[in-house]
Amino acid sequence: MAYKDDQLSEEKVFKDPVHRYVHVRDRVIWDLIATPEFQRLRRIKQLGTTHLTFHGAEHSRFNHSLGVYEIVRRILNNFKDREHWNNEERLLCLCAALLHDLGHGPFSHSFEKVFKLDHEYFTQAIIVGDTKVNEILEKVSPGFARKVADVIGKTYEDKLVVSLISSQIDADRMDYLQRDAYFTGVSYGHFDMERILRVMRPIEDQVVIKSTGMHAVEDYIMSRYQMYWQVYFHPVTRSAEVILSKILHRAKHLYQDVGYTFKLEPIHFISFFEEDVSLEDYLKLDESVVQYYFQLWQEEEDEILSDLCERFMNRRLFKYVEFNPNLQINDLLELTQLFMKAGIEPEYYLVVDSSSDLPYDFYRPGEEEERLPIHLQMPNGSLKELSRHSDIVESISGKKRTDHKLYFPLDKLKALTDNGLKQQIMDILYGQGESRKNVN
Amino acid sequence: MAYKDDQLSEEKVFKDPVHRYVHVRDRVIWDLIATPEFQRLRRIKQLGTTHLTFHGAEHSRFNHSLGVYEIVRRILNNFKDREHWNNEERLLCLCAALLHDLGHGPFSHSFEKVFKLDHEYFTQAIIVGDTKVNEILEKVSPGFARKVADVIGKTYEDKLVVSLISSQIDADRMDYLQRDAYFTGVSYGHFDMERILRVMRPIEDQVVIKSTGMHAVEDYIMSRYQMYWQVYFHPVTRSAEVILSKILHRAKHLYQDVGYTFKLEPIHFISFFEEDVSLEDYLKLDESVVQYYFQLWQEEEDEILSDLCERFMNRRLFKYVEFNPNLQINDLLELTQLFMKAGIEPEYYLVVDSSSDLPYDFYRPGEEEERLPIHLQMPNGSLKELSRHSDIVESISGKKRTDHKLYFPLDKLKALTDNGLKQQIMDILYGQGESRKNVN
Amino acid sequence: MAYKDDQLSEEKVFKDPVHRYVHVRDRVIWDLIATPEFQRLRRIKQLGTTHLTFHGAEHSRFNHSLGVYEIVRRILNNFKDREHWNNEERLLCLCAALLHDLGHGPFSHSFEKVFKLDHEYFTQAIIVGDTKVNEILEKVSPGFARKVADVIGKTYEDKLVVSLISSQIDADRMDYLQRDAYFTGVSYGHFDMERILRVMRPIEDQVVIKSTGMHAVEDYIMSRYQMYWQVYFHPVTRSAEVILSKILHRAKHLYQDVGYTFKLEPIHFISFFEEDVSLEDYLKLDESVVQYYFQLWQEEEDEILSDLCERFMNRRLFKYVEFNPNLQINDLLELTQLFMKAGIEPEYYLVVDSSSDLPYDFYRPGEEEERLPIHLQMPNGSLKELSRHSDIVESISGKKRTDHKLYFPLDKLKALTDNGLKQQIMDILYGQGESRKNVN
Amino acid sequence: MAYKDDQLSEEKVFKDPVHRYVHVRDRVIWDLIATPEFQRLRRIKQLGTTHLTFHGAEHSRFNHSLGVYEIVRRILNNFKDREHWNNEERLLCLCAALLHDLGHGPFSHSFEKVFKLDHEYFTQAIIVGDTKVNEILEKVSPGFARKVADVIGKTYEDKLVVSLISSQIDADRMDYLQRDAYFTGVSYGHFDMERILRVMRPIEDQVVIKSTGMHAVEDYIMSRYQMYWQVYFHPVTRSAEVILSKILHRAKHLYQDVGYTFKLEPIHFISFFEEDVSLEDYLKLDESVVQYYFQLWQEEEDEILSDLCERFMNRRLFKYVEFNPNLQINDLLELTQLFMKAGIEPEYYLVVDSSSDLPYDFYRPGEEEERLPIHLQMPNGSLKELSRHSDIVESISGKKRTDHKLYFPLDKLKALTDNGLKQQIMDILYGQGESRKNVN
Repeated sequence: MAYKDDQLSEEKVFKDPVHRYVHVRDRVIWDLIATPEFQRLRRIKQLGTTHLTFHGAEHSRFNHSLGVYEIVRRILNNFKDREHWNNEERLLCLCAALLHDLGHGPFSHSFEKVFKLDHEYFTQAIIVGDTKVNEILEKVSPGFARKVADVIGKTYEDKLVVSLISSQIDADRMDYLQRDAYFTGVSYGHFDMERILRVMRPIEDQVVIKSTGMHAVEDYIMSRYQMYWQVYFHPVTRSAEVILSKILHRAKHLYQDVGYTFKLEPIHFISFFEEDVSLEDYLKLDESVVQYYFQLWQEEEDEILSDLCERFMNRRLFKYVEFNPNLQINDLLELTQLFMKAGIEPEYYLVVDSSSDLPYDFYRPGEEEERLPIHLQMPNGSLKELSRHSDIVESISGKKRTDHKLYFPLDKLKALTDNGLKQQIMDILYGQGESRKNVN
Repeated sequence: MAYKDDQLSEEKVFKDPVHRYVHVRDRVIWDLIATPEFQRLRRIKQLGTTHLTFHGAEHSRFNHSLGVYEIVRRILNNFKDREHWNNEERLLCLCAALLHDLGHGPFSHSFEKVFKLDHEYFTQAIIVGDTKVNEILEKVSPGFARKVADVIGKTYEDKLVVSLISSQIDADRMDYLQRDAYFTGVSYGHFDMERILRVMRPIEDQVVIKSTGMHAVEDYIMSRYQMYWQVYFHPVTRSAEVILSKILHRAKHLYQDVGYTFKLEPIHFISFFEEDVSLEDYLKLDESVVQYYFQLWQEEEDEILSDLCERFMNRRLFKYVEFNPNLQINDLLELTQLFMKAGIEPEYYLVVDSSSDLPYDFYRPGEEEERLPIHLQMPNGSLKELSRHSDIVESISGKKRTDHKLYFPLDKLKALTDNGLKQQIMDILYGQGESRKNVN
Repeated sequence: MAYKDDQLSEEKVFKDPVHRYVHVRDRVIWDLIATPEFQRLRRIKQLGTTHLTFHGAEHSRFNHSLGVYEIVRRILNNFKDREHWNNEERLLCLCAALLHDLGHGPFSHSFEKVFKLDHEYFTQAIIVGDTKVNEILEKVSPGFARKVADVIGKTYEDKLVVSLISSQIDADRMDYLQRDAYFTGVSYGHFDMERILRVMRPIEDQVVIKSTGMHAVEDYIMSRYQMYWQVYFHPVTRSAEVILSKILHRAKHLYQDVGYTFKLEPIHFISFFEEDVSLEDYLKLDESVVQYYFQLWQEEEDEILSDLCERFMNRRLFKYVEFNPNLQINDLLELTQLFMKAGIEPEYYLVVDSSSDLPYDFYRPGEEEERLPIHLQMPNGSLKELSRHSDIVESISGKKRTDHKLYFPLDKLKALTDNGLKQQIMDILYGQGESRKNVN
Repeated sequence: MAYKDDQLSEEKVFKDPVHRYVHVRDRVIWDLIATPEFQRLRRIKQLGTTHLTFHGAEHSRFNHSLGVYEIVRRILNNFKDREHWNNEERLLCLCAALLHDLGHGPFSHSFEKVFKLDHEYFTQAIIVGDTKVNEILEKVSPGFARKVADVIGKTYEDKLVVSLISSQIDADRMDYLQRDAYFTGVSYGHFDMERILRVMRPIEDQVVIKSTGMHAVEDYIMSRYQMYWQVYFHPVTRSAEVILSKILHRAKHLYQDVGYTFKLEPIHFISFFEEDVSLEDYLKLDESVVQYYFQLWQEEEDEILSDLCERFMNRRLFKYVEFNPNLQINDLLELTQLFMKAGIEPEYYLVVDSSSDLPYDFYRPGEEEERLPIHLQMPNGSLKELSRHSDIVESISGKKRTDHKLYFPLDKLKALTDNGLKQQIMDILYGQGESRKNVN
């Protein structure tokens, strides 16, 4: 039998708290899960530093990847005999679903910004590079790995296939909303996925939703909205991300600009500092390794590095106040100077962080980040863009909301001995009335 | 106000997927949670290697510790005005609950066996030693830290207090059964904790259960039984533990007996290899550090060490067959010789692992591991040991069940080129009929 | 001890699937639950005919009433020591919560419209009339029953007390959304009530929400929105309501206008037909009685009455099409004539039904149905109306949505022998293209 | 297309709180659900009087019947391509599953005992009699109705088919345990049905369980055990059943033996009193009708009948004490005499009620109520009876447990004016020490 058609003699299942069971019958999938590249996802948390806010959120990208695979498997089970669906694409979709996050590194967001990396690039690099994953995919058929990479990269020609993995209502989002809700324990994130799966219909170039399922989709979009603001952008999590970024900045700066000598050479980090990361280097850097160095660096002589690492490891986070960049830019300049006067380096200890989300968007052709809208299939077969049919979605559609916060180490401020200076800083941060109780 | 009575101005809550919310009002508790020693528990998984079997089980001991605290808090809320309960002991109980697992290290079970450690010793050492935790406890009152340690060590004189933390139906067990069930996703582990809490009654020297709550307790004991055999002793998890133990054995052996030179000196491990571990050394060794070394050791020259580490990191586990030590001892001897002949060191690659559990025990005074039985309080006030009242508990009471399995690397066996030798081994492992399909 | 302070020797609990347990300690509450007037609520379904659409929705108003009581009990537990809260009002609130739906009759909506009744009137009548409930309340203190009635009637002077029972985020709504979601099994209706309860704050004249809880309130409002359109206004349920109304109309018409003789005198209904219902008559008419008569009436000689009853009992409902009263009024007139020609009385068999909901409203003083808005309490203590702070709520605030549907018995139409007439009717109902498949 | 193969153009679903969705594609099933005989099950509660103890338990047999159908549908989906399974039997199984409880009347247990009825007889009578259900089944093929009746009656020749519907682990039990747990809200009743369905295997004459699923089956059996003792045999529910039986006894006695004239002739009951019930009579007697009469009978002149009805309708139940028939038979005789002396008819007011359950039984051929044991299919294909493999099941296997309670109206006893007589009765019921607090 051809490898691509090879089935396990009995279906294997993984017990999954979100989808009850993840079912595997294709040997290709089974073999991909067993690769070192896929197993590595166990050492990368799905939500980075979120567990410092929601302690349950310790689940890994391995979990999520299995979940996305399972959702696509169920969708395709429903599509099997439908018009427009070419079942030859089945294995391609399953592989793309399973592997879509393969290139994520530890704390991706911060690492990517500081070291100018891109996890999507690495996902593709792992799939087409010299890896076990590639070896297995090429056994399916020569060129198959490339196709999987193209689906994930959204350049694959069959847009119906692409939309299963990447759209405003794809298997990726449906899994992470539910999974992240489950592990954090928040009550948002519930929607009737079983119903959504049942009303999904393949057409030529996309997956659409039977209009009778509109309310389930509304519910999904509201879940998404709540998860973003309640969980993903939680200001305490952002505080940990701010510190993390600053650690990476500082370490890179020490290595590149200052010629600082670390007590133990940070071998895993060097190619990152030098912004010349090979695939092999990249695959070695998981969260364990990062935390190992952060532990060591707590004992470095550089006070900024050791302080930031100690904060990260022991969750001594920065505090924050709301910040309006339009109105408060002068406050920020003044604070910068006062921090310098106080000997607290503003570059590392006074940070504006911004979060913004666009909960759902209709189609804006030609814009930077085009997003395919969700289409409802009306009883007469015509398509209607979701926000034209749903009041609720219409009301939040295309509206980007942005929040800014200013982060700083309140403990350091409280420890200042120059009371006048301290008071000046606190008055700006908290307003004159409020500052007193925070000072003491 | 005295520190011990200091209350936060507003109650703080942690969102918890198992108990919905964990509530903190006492400043002492809040401060303990913020210590480095307690935050370290975030880097130690509650279930060690279980996530290699049940991928959801990635939760940490930090999670569980908060949960135990919360359960005790709820129990004491109910006890507040009850006879026999001295509310002066409240804070002591809460601290003991929160800190009861503080001394756990990474993968405790295997580490303790190989390096002759004891997490209970370290729990006490952290509490009474030179630590932030100790500093906070001593601020409550001099000697308070010692009392907390005694409660956890079961030597505290007020046995009622001890029984809240350690008995056959204590807050510890009630939390982990539910929590581990939640994160693995298995359907065992459900019982009506709210009802159990409501029927708990303090008497002089223990917590007893109003007899009307007997069925809820039965359900709890059955949950425990199922969780042990379905989750905690799962043979795939045991396989990972076997490999883990063998890694530690090998590394220690190389360091102590052979004078092997590691590519990078394993500084975090040396005091472990030498069985002379200070508190400071101990606190530094979390799971990130262990995994960091295991990653490095994949590239060591020693083939056994590198092979075992690669297996652990990439989840290439050993396979297993049932093993009966009474009947199959000769098989084992023969296999040992055949493995040696095949160049596969049996010391590392042929391992018998045994699991055993005693789901509930009545009182056996004087035995090695005395277990306090669960007492029901009958309507007339008299006490009755649970197994005398419950048919189901009676049926499993005092019955120790043990399972033995024999672990080995099937891949290595399949790769043997001496077909006769291979066949001999397989015939013993799988029986003559079955072996053929495993060979191919 | 005064009756009002009398406590049960042990707390009693009711197992509740929604709130886990309902707790009762006050003897007054315990005694109220045991009255015939309260037990009668077991024979009245919470959602009338909804179980004909969602088969799980068979729960009674008894369930819901206990739930509302329990929520208020929990709120007051939190309020106990808060400023502005006068704990003397506790028992009053609990009684009002428990009894707020006491005057509901079977299938209230239809009965009230046809027989010009008002369940709120009867709630008050039962509380202040010659009933067991009244007897118990008056034992608390003379005039106490009147106070309870006033709280439910919203005329009680302490508006804080009133707002616990009746506002846009009161215990009533929080219970029914969750309970109806639980029993129907829909995935809407989840929100974090525990959090909402924790951020509720009493002020002089109302309950407000700490602004940190805004997202939980948003989630509650979205749940409400979804429950209305997905469950409460489900067109299949409306179809059953249409038939029910028409049964009552027909029976009343036959009795009042025609002098029709029923096979068995409908003694329970006579005062309803005559629109002169005493409290005693009202209390006797529960759902069992109504269904008893509907069963009998299936065998009445009047064909319309027997047909409608048979439809209701055996769930042979009317079909429906969307209807736009502005554009389709002529269609309706034409259909009326065609139905008459076909011998199908349009008065009973061609019905427009309208549903409309206002998911949340800001304050519109002086309007017919004033609704108190939800106020957020900002960190500085000021109040802000919810829709000014929440984008999502703003977007649906004050927007009334109305749906109209036209109901008719498709089976009767299909059975017409005059094919031309049949075709004419179908063309209007379904449009010329679509009608064909419905005819056959 | 043949009627038996006719499929709905789109799958229809029922939202179900237990199984999420019930799926229907076969027109035969759709048509059966729409029959008056099946719709009638909406007016019969699944758990009779249990809602007087667990207020959530108001769900009907209609609910449960859909659930059993859905489970069988899922099982057969798994069986489709398995050896031993003849897919020709599919529709037969689905119909039998859906209709297996069709003959249940209101409060079956009590009605059957008092009026010597048998719901299994009526199930068959409805299926093969002059009904809509029969009409539809006969359209499938002549004689098909008889086959369905035979499967339900366990006389059908293909024992594999029978065992799906009736065995110690059949779809019926799996549904009711979960459903009754859901609606009562108790935490028992959870087991991993999805896993059990996945390990079910058809063999020639029965459904067996792959041995790897043993623990899920253990969990199911424990659920069953707990549900029986915690829910089904709850003494408060039994109290309501006792009163119900006595109402029926009294009414029958008045009609048959005394020639009593009811205020309104109990037309629906007459054939029951005369023990000559036609199918038509039987189908008319649903719970609404019964409650209608009980309401009327509250105003009958016969004091016993009116008192018992008033108790039932208003939940003024009997109290109970434990009763040991071996030791306390003399107490009972004495109480009987004392009750007579007190003017409280012991025939109606002093009742011993016994509950007993056999949680699991191995095979006892030839015994009165043979129960087919559950067989595990071992890895080598051989079968092993469950209790030989599972310690827990072994421990409760074949052990019948019986409980006896003595019921009486405590209020009537308290109201006795002869204090000596009252004291004598109370001393026997509660023991000399305890009686005092119950008297006052």
